[in-house]
Amino acid sequence: MYLEKINSPSDIKKLSVDEMKKLTQEMRDALIFKLSRHGGHCGPNLGFAEATVALHYVFDSPTDKIVFDVSHQTYCHKMLTGRKDGFLYEEHFDNISGYSNPAESEHDFFVIGHTSTSVSLALGLAKARDLKHESGNVIAVIGDGSLSGGEALEAIDYAGEFDGNLIVIINDNDMSIAENHGGMYKNLKALREGNGKADTNLFTAMGLDYVFVKDGNDIESLIAAFSKVKDSKRPVAVHIVTEKGKGLSFAEENKEDWHWHMPFDVETGKPKFNFDGEDYGDLTAKMLLEKMKKDESVCVLTSGTPTVGGFRKGRRDEAGRQFIDVGIAEENAAAMASGIAAGGGKPLYTVYSTFIQRTYDQISQDICINNSPVAISVFAGSVYGMSDVTHLGLYDIPMLSNIPNLVYLAPATKEEYLSMLDWAIEQSKYPVAVRVPGGAVISDGKEVKSDWSDINKYEITKSGSRIAVIALGTFYQLGEKAAKLIEEKTGTAPTLINPHYITGIDKDMLEDLKKNHDVVITLEDGILEGGFGEKIARFYGNSDVKTLCFGLEKKFYDRYDVNELMHTAHLTPEQIAEDTIALLK
Amino acid sequence: MYLEKINSPSDIKKLSVDEMKKLTQEMRDALIFKLSRHGGHCGPNLGFAEATVALHYVFDSPTDKIVFDVSHQTYCHKMLTGRKDGFLYEEHFDNISGYSNPAESEHDFFVIGHTSTSVSLALGLAKARDLKHESGNVIAVIGDGSLSGGEALEAIDYAGEFDGNLIVIINDNDMSIAENHGGMYKNLKALREGNGKADTNLFTAMGLDYVFVKDGNDIESLIAAFSKVKDSKRPVAVHIVTEKGKGLSFAEENKEDWHWHMPFDVETGKPKFNFDGEDYGDLTAKMLLEKMKKDESVCVLTSGTPTVGGFRKGRRDEAGRQFIDVGIAEENAAAMASGIAAGGGKPLYTVYSTFIQRTYDQISQDICINNSPVAISVFAGSVYGMSDVTHLGLYDIPMLSNIPNLVYLAPATKEEYLSMLDWAIEQSKYPVAVRVPGGAVISDGKEVKSDWSDINKYEITKSGSRIAVIALGTFYQLGEKAAKLIEEKTGTAPTLINPHYITGIDKDMLEDLKKNHDVVITLEDGILEGGFGEKIARFYGNSDVKTLCFGLEKKFYDRYDVNELMHTAHLTPEQIAEDTIALLK
Repeated sequence: MYLEKINSPSDIKKLSVDEMKKLTQEMRDALIFKLSRHGGHCGPNLGFAEATVALHYVFDSPTDKIVFDVSHQTYCHKMLTGRKDGFLYEEHFDNISGYSNPAESEHDFFVIGHTSTSVSLALGLAKARDLKHESGNVIAVIGDGSLSGGEALEAIDYAGEFDGNLIVIINDNDMSIAENHGGMYKNLKALREGNGKADTNLFTAMGLDYVFVKDGNDIESLIAAFSKVKDSKRPVAVHIVTEKGKGLSFAEENKEDWHWHMPFDVETGKPKFNFDGEDYGDLTAKMLLEKMKKDESVCVLTSGTPTVGGFRKGRRDEAGRQFIDVGIAEENAAAMASGIAAGGGKPLYTVYSTFIQRTYDQISQDICINNSPVAISVFAGSVYGMSDVTHLGLYDIPMLSNIPNLVYLAPATKEEYLSMLDWAIEQSKYPVAVRVPGGAVISDGKEVKSDWSDINKYEITKSGSRIAVIALGTFYQLGEKAAKLIEEKTGTAPTLINPHYITGIDKDMLEDLKKNHDVVITLEDGILEGGFGEKIARFYGNSDVKTLCFGLEKKFYDRYDVNELMHTAHLTPEQIAEDTIALLK
Repeated sequence: MYLEKINSPSDIKKLSVDEMKKLTQEMRDALIFKLSRHGGHCGPNLGFAEATVALHYVFDSPTDKIVFDVSHQTYCHKMLTGRKDGFLYEEHFDNISGYSNPAESEHDFFVIGHTSTSVSLALGLAKARDLKHESGNVIAVIGDGSLSGGEALEAIDYAGEFDGNLIVIINDNDMSIAENHGGMYKNLKALREGNGKADTNLFTAMGLDYVFVKDGNDIESLIAAFSKVKDSKRPVAVHIVTEKGKGLSFAEENKEDWHWHMPFDVETGKPKFNFDGEDYGDLTAKMLLEKMKKDESVCVLTSGTPTVGGFRKGRRDEAGRQFIDVGIAEENAAAMASGIAAGGGKPLYTVYSTFIQRTYDQISQDICINNSPVAISVFAGSVYGMSDVTHLGLYDIPMLSNIPNLVYLAPATKEEYLSMLDWAIEQSKYPVAVRVPGGAVISDGKEVKSDWSDINKYEITKSGSRIAVIALGTFYQLGEKAAKLIEEKTGTAPTLINPHYITGIDKDMLEDLKKNHDVVITLEDGILEGGFGEKIARFYGNSDVKTLCFGLEKKFYDRYDVNELMHTAHLTPEQIAEDTIALLK
């Protein structure tokens, strides 16, 4: 086995092309071995095996520095840079992360998980090299799907005036997570079909030199192209055409479903675990498809992740022109939604908590200053969301809830979510974001109001005294449990409150609580700093009511165990009850 | 006079080309009349007079909808849409804002002040039109300088696959605020020089049709081009070449200084007011130029506003390759700074508070997750900054200070600013932002420490009892005054604290204050929600110490009078003292 003998990129340089081809096959086998047992990014890694070998054959990492966009295609890079055991041996699978990570290897330069950042980061490395009069190549790898992101386009444009070595590998597999969207993809298609020649060329229009490689899964062509641009004194784009999912028939045939995949049976491609419960994406898509049929002005936007709101392929077709995938382009999605609302349409932007971070300014300026009645569903904004440090959903409350004019709602159940979503779309007075609950779908069958226009009106779900528990969104049920324990331990039922609104406080209710409450606690599913609880703490600051805010400490968490994290943060019902009771005089 | 007879765009349609030329001259006179007395955006408006007339001649606003990027070139549009008095009569100057505003006219569709948003917003209007089966043209006007912004590039790319009418007017005056930066400007130059023909074309590469107008200050050419694309069924870019500042010799000759200009003498071009005090931009540039000479790895980045950090033309030349203007491309600036820091350089990103909003995700992901030791100077983050609703500096504390790993410093004086800035650049452990104080430069000559690595260590500047005043950054002097009044009124000197750090609390000191303080108040120069004071309020929530947070209510303010605003927010020393004393038992 060749792979077992590769301990660093220098070992690749000893191989012949034939041996490299055999190595690539072994790498692909290792990928399928791990992916089928562990799950992970299938398509991006399977397609980039040959290019990874060729990059490490031609360039001298880490003197030459390779920056991978999203870095969800670095599995092969990891195999070749001392981390092969993480793929070959099941017991080592979790030793390495799914993204590049400087803590793992000197061949990784950044922790990366969001798209469209590699060219900027590489430009920085190249600039530092030149300021310090050092040498070496800096290589940014970026997929065609990531090219539509503003950060990537800004960087490619600036690269076009950069005076020094910078190599941008365009890994064109004609796919984003789903199909590509944007006019530039017509140009990429023309370049692919014209063997690198077309009437116009996005990369030269941005000021870069341009090299085309027809078969980006052919090691010899790649070595030739990379050798040609090595030590280039100017920025150059190397456009290589690869096949996403190459070598795994299911992934080749259904690229969207196999971009990322859970553990699967290698023979049949069937997932090893069945999830047949309800999920909020599904619920969203079903509701929206109904609405769309009744009202042609209703539309759904996504920025390259159509399934976040449940819009799988068939449903997208069903929605037709009422479904808008702008490609990976969060800024355009948010601002365009504002334009649609200003024009009298009813847009819903569906987006992950972690990716809405790309649109702070658009939400503030394009949407909220204009008070455009855009609806936004924020998914996976929860400790129960993704746990990779680059994909956390723990920061959207501080980010969104302090932007003026925005109404940010926190449903606690399926019934509340659907009602709030419906209201958000139909009303025309406010920009409204809805924080989709985390974890399993909870349905309590409770009748829910349909009109949420009485802004910042909290709901007392159980009247009590001495202690009030204000439990937000996903943590409402946690608050319910804590309240029960408090009652058991103190003999007095606390007041339980479902606040519904993240962006403001119910001053009347909070004022009223002062009469017969000594302690008010808040529970929120995210970091505490800048969040919901602190608003309550400020309100009671000048009174005798004591407050305690439960949530997470401001920190970047990485691949955490959720139960462990909740325990460390004193977020179990027992801990909450205990900490709260300790405050009673 | 023609202008006095124009009450709506329909009045223009009656004019001959000759009459329109005379009208344009009158509009330019009116511009100079107002600008010389009132100040404002000179270059953008003077250059776009003919195009505005031609747009309103060819299209039928408001059925046809024109969206202006930044909207700092809408003065002529305002003159032609019922708002001419705001230019002709001094007493009406302040009746209209410097930007587009739907509250002023049905011909304005959005409040816009940030760059690079027009194409997205127009796409939204166009999509709404099509969803609702309506008709009419949607026109986005965008300057060449704004093209480099990610939001614009994302939108132009998506426009390339948009299936319907969308007209994008590229107003190319070969300038941003300062000179343009980015590879695309080589392509624009080639297109200008080739009369619309070049080897490659950014706009067709993005999927748009393309029309070129050599003289964008010639009404007849413009009318011909606009008539040609009117009712186009496909997205089309109309590239018009205009002269920035046209008709005002000073503005033609020195385009950068006359992009925006304070009131001036029409004969000499000399500003009517002299500002010869120190400013923080100047101080920054002087210090950085010194540092750059000693250390080649030090560099300054800007995203299209080089003078924010004091880097006027001569200083940029002096800094040479150590000064990096990426053009209007905030995302790339932030991420590239991270790359420079990761590569061992010492980058300082200088940026306005209002524009750092474009980089939330880059600061979180590219900089802070990677703990890259980037230094950032955040200018005009203060109630004493810009007062247009689109340019407020009141939100950066909630936005930045809740991002993990970031150290956000709040200097209160010149000495503190320079010391913190120096430390931020030289240290290699943290991403550090420094909030440049607002208002006049305050120098108290006090010796300041040079090492700020004892993170979250607040400073007691005056020991006292019963009341503690924690006064952040620009509001430190306000806190000093309030403390003095409190002492006068109660006979007991309060403790005065300069916290220095926005991003965290000094738990030991706050704990210690409990011993002999009943009330702790906080003062911050920005909105309270998600800000600094709430962190203190949360800390004391479970104690007997009462807290009161002074700052602004979460809201969008517009063209406020700062003294009035401070009074309304209870931010005068007297009000602070009074409110605080009322809390003593």
